[in-house]
Amino acid sequence: MNTRSTQDWLDAVAWNDEGLVPAIAQDHGHGRVLMLAWMNREALSLTLSEGRAVYYSRSRQRIWRKGEESGHVQKLIQLRLDCDGDALLLEVEQIGGIACHTGRASCFYRAPVAASADHAAYWQDVDAVIQSEESIYGSAE
Amino acid sequence: MNTRSTQDWLDAVAWNDEGLVPAIAQDHGHGRVLMLAWMNREALSLTLSEGRAVYYSRSRQRIWRKGEESGHVQKLIQLRLDCDGDALLLEVEQIGGIACHTGRASCFYRAPVAASADHAAYWQDVDAVIQSEESIYGSAE
Repeated sequence: MNTRSTQDWLDAVAWNDEGLVPAIAQDHGHGRVLMLAWMNREALSLTLSEGRAVYYSRSRQRIWRKGEESGHVQKLIQLRLDCDGDALLLEVEQIGGIACHTGRASCFYRAPVAASADHAAYWQDVDAVIQSEESIYGSAE
Repeated sequence: MNTRSTQDWLDAVAWNDEGLVPAIAQDHGHGRVLMLAWMNREALSLTLSEGRAVYYSRSRQRIWRKGEESGHVQKLIQLRLDCDGDALLLEVEQIGGIACHTGRASCFYRAPVAASADHAAYWQDVDAVIQSEESIYGSAE
């Protein structure tokens, strides 16, 4: 369905009961999926107008400009909405090459380790830490 | 945080109030993000044991083996959990090269078209339909 007739592009998004929609960030260069976060109307609007990923932090309950503390800003290259309007995809340039607060390139660094053929017993960290959390956020905070 | 000590790998997932977690499917070959769907405990367990993407359909309120009607099965290549445990990433082989029910390669086929420098007026379909919905699901249904 084309939403060309929708006057407000923000109305075309199927916001959930909390007024949020999941947003996936993917690295424009190597193509790796970096993280999943959430946006409200203001965050999506700011993302497009500022040309950088702006999320809504559910834990802090406020607008969160990705990289505001760490410097690991995500420059917006391309934005996409899915068929049902209930998920967003951001192609970004990840400044510093680190998206995760743990200092890893991507937040998706845990893989299941199977104890038997069809049952996984635990998740194992499979990606290296590029920079320590202390070094990113500072010990004085 | 390593969850090695967690006996049940399913308990390490931060299920939401509805017992669900968002799952991103990414194509193993070209790296494109194909779709975002949801999983409950059973869906995640089946995904790993059956080696294919099994979601929980919120609209139909039942387990949904991706491709069960269309044939567009997603073979599981790799599974990842994110740092907070509240999002999953599936690297898949997309059978038929079509993930979207609209017959497109990816569900993320709508891009904002700006009416002015910082305000987008509408979303435009920017990807081609590979196969028609009628052809995928049949007209007899």
